[in-house]
Amino acid sequence: MDTLRALATDPAARGLVDDAAVLETGDGAIVLTHDMIVEGVHYLPGDPPADVAWKLVAVNLSDLAAKGARPMGVLLGFTLGEEAWDRAFADGLGTVLGAFGIPLLGGDTVSAPARVLGLTAIGRAERVPPNRSGAAPGDQLWVSGTIGDAGAGLAALREGRDAAQLIERYRNPRPRLEAGERLVPLVKAMMDVSDGLLIDTGRMAEASGCRAEIALEAVPLSEPYLADRGETRLEAATAGDDYELLFAAAPAQAPAILALSEELGLPFTRVGTFTAGSGLGLTEDGAPVALPQRLGFEHG
Amino acid sequence: MDTLRALATDPAARGLVDDAAVLETGDGAIVLTHDMIVEGVHYLPGDPPADVAWKLVAVNLSDLAAKGARPMGVLLGFTLGEEAWDRAFADGLGTVLGAFGIPLLGGDTVSAPARVLGLTAIGRAERVPPNRSGAAPGDQLWVSGTIGDAGAGLAALREGRDAAQLIERYRNPRPRLEAGERLVPLVKAMMDVSDGLLIDTGRMAEASGCRAEIALEAVPLSEPYLADRGETRLEAATAGDDYELLFAAAPAQAPAILALSEELGLPFTRVGTFTAGSGLGLTEDGAPVALPQRLGFEHG
Repeated sequence: MDTLRALATDPAARGLVDDAAVLETGDGAIVLTHDMIVEGVHYLPGDPPADVAWKLVAVNLSDLAAKGARPMGVLLGFTLGEEAWDRAFADGLGTVLGAFGIPLLGGDTVSAPARVLGLTAIGRAERVPPNRSGAAPGDQLWVSGTIGDAGAGLAALREGRDAAQLIERYRNPRPRLEAGERLVPLVKAMMDVSDGLLIDTGRMAEASGCRAEIALEAVPLSEPYLADRGETRLEAATAGDDYELLFAAAPAQAPAILALSEELGLPFTRVGTFTAGSGLGLTEDGAPVALPQRLGFEHG
Repeated sequence: MDTLRALATDPAARGLVDDAAVLETGDGAIVLTHDMIVEGVHYLPGDPPADVAWKLVAVNLSDLAAKGARPMGVLLGFTLGEEAWDRAFADGLGTVLGAFGIPLLGGDTVSAPARVLGLTAIGRAERVPPNRSGAAPGDQLWVSGTIGDAGAGLAALREGRDAAQLIERYRNPRPRLEAGERLVPLVKAMMDVSDGLLIDTGRMAEASGCRAEIALEAVPLSEPYLADRGETRLEAATAGDDYELLFAAAPAQAPAILALSEELGLPFTRVGTFTAGSGLGLTEDGAPVALPQRLGFEHG
């Protein structure tokens, strides 16, 4: 909303272009993010409440990961509803917070005519965090993990197909917290892929004032994805909910990035290049590919 | 919700008993609070959107004030709705943030079937903040400002009476930020009065493991209140939305508290005493008064 954006004039707000606010302190920064999820928009009424809790926490932690921030805790904004659902949500919240070792610090519970759940996550970064606008022509574009799994999981759920590993990626995304923290000294721009590799790369290019070219054949797919969908890389690159890290780095950092990948046991794959100009380009084995109509999934 | 409370085991959460989370740092603390307001529960559909924005910000800042924390910024969780309302809300948000000199740092906007607005406020405290559990037998109970104005304003609105100053107190509460910050070294427990003087005093006594006795004749009323409602101190002490500071201090601090009151031009009034025991007692000119059925207004 433009009127709200106009209010966010403080440098810490980063023009609301970034996914998180950054308050620089003497020895690093406090990073804050607040994401909401709404029944019928971000999840379906029939989704297991524990998975809704997982997702609410994971999407916020993913924003912290992209800033290289270590989570200090979360505050929950909870709308009370059907009691069994509320209890299952609270149990699931305990599970996800336990899995990431993060405390519930506070929040608010209210009665409301609809489920609108909010979560604030706060983290501490030891260095000034990267934003999405630091990429420059000549930089390489990298992505963590594999792309498209969550989107394929959602499709499998909708179509009633059995694809447990993909569905798990959709329901229980794993924010790349350690990777984000370790990548900070190596990258020039970083964000998480939440709406789709193409659309989010376009946003990084736009914020950085340059052009991004993605090599489709390089987009990393998982074994379960290949088994379920085949080599449908364009589909994977436009699906949402990956919650992987997308980052720009100078070519000289490639060896350090690959060494970190090895150490963490998490793939980092070079999927493109930044050039002078604007917009987003797509190639496959060197030949230009037309951009699809839909570059990703824009959440509510 | 007990299941959620059970998750809040971190010391920073203060058992969710306090209104704000406190993350101690080497040189003080980071204070975080998240409050939500819901159409039809915390405000009426016909209320001016700018006043809704004011209240959303003010109730959160009041929690920071009670911790003696200086606001660093806010994150907004906004549900989009009717466009003119959204715009008027955003304008009002700009007004209230401007009035307190506080930046909008970020947040989220979503489409939702109902208005559920959330705000996270973050502040920094130079000393470890007081909580509501530090009062001890022999301490004096104080309150800032005057009590009952907002409740009388709400009644005037409902009854269509003209009481501009009281209505203003209801719609545009002023969080006692400077007073809170300055009081920290003088007090043993502090919280804000949001649900009513009696109910909130009872909460402080319970958290502190002692008994509070309130002297009804001491409850400070404003000139506009007296003009509108007369000397109805019990009514004032059970009305909500005051957003004044309630604090416990050793008797030896009384001169310093009164000097600060003078300096700030804000009344601090001694309204009671903590004693050994439990619960809440009420006297008027030394004689016991029965507690009313309803001690305050519990917001959703």
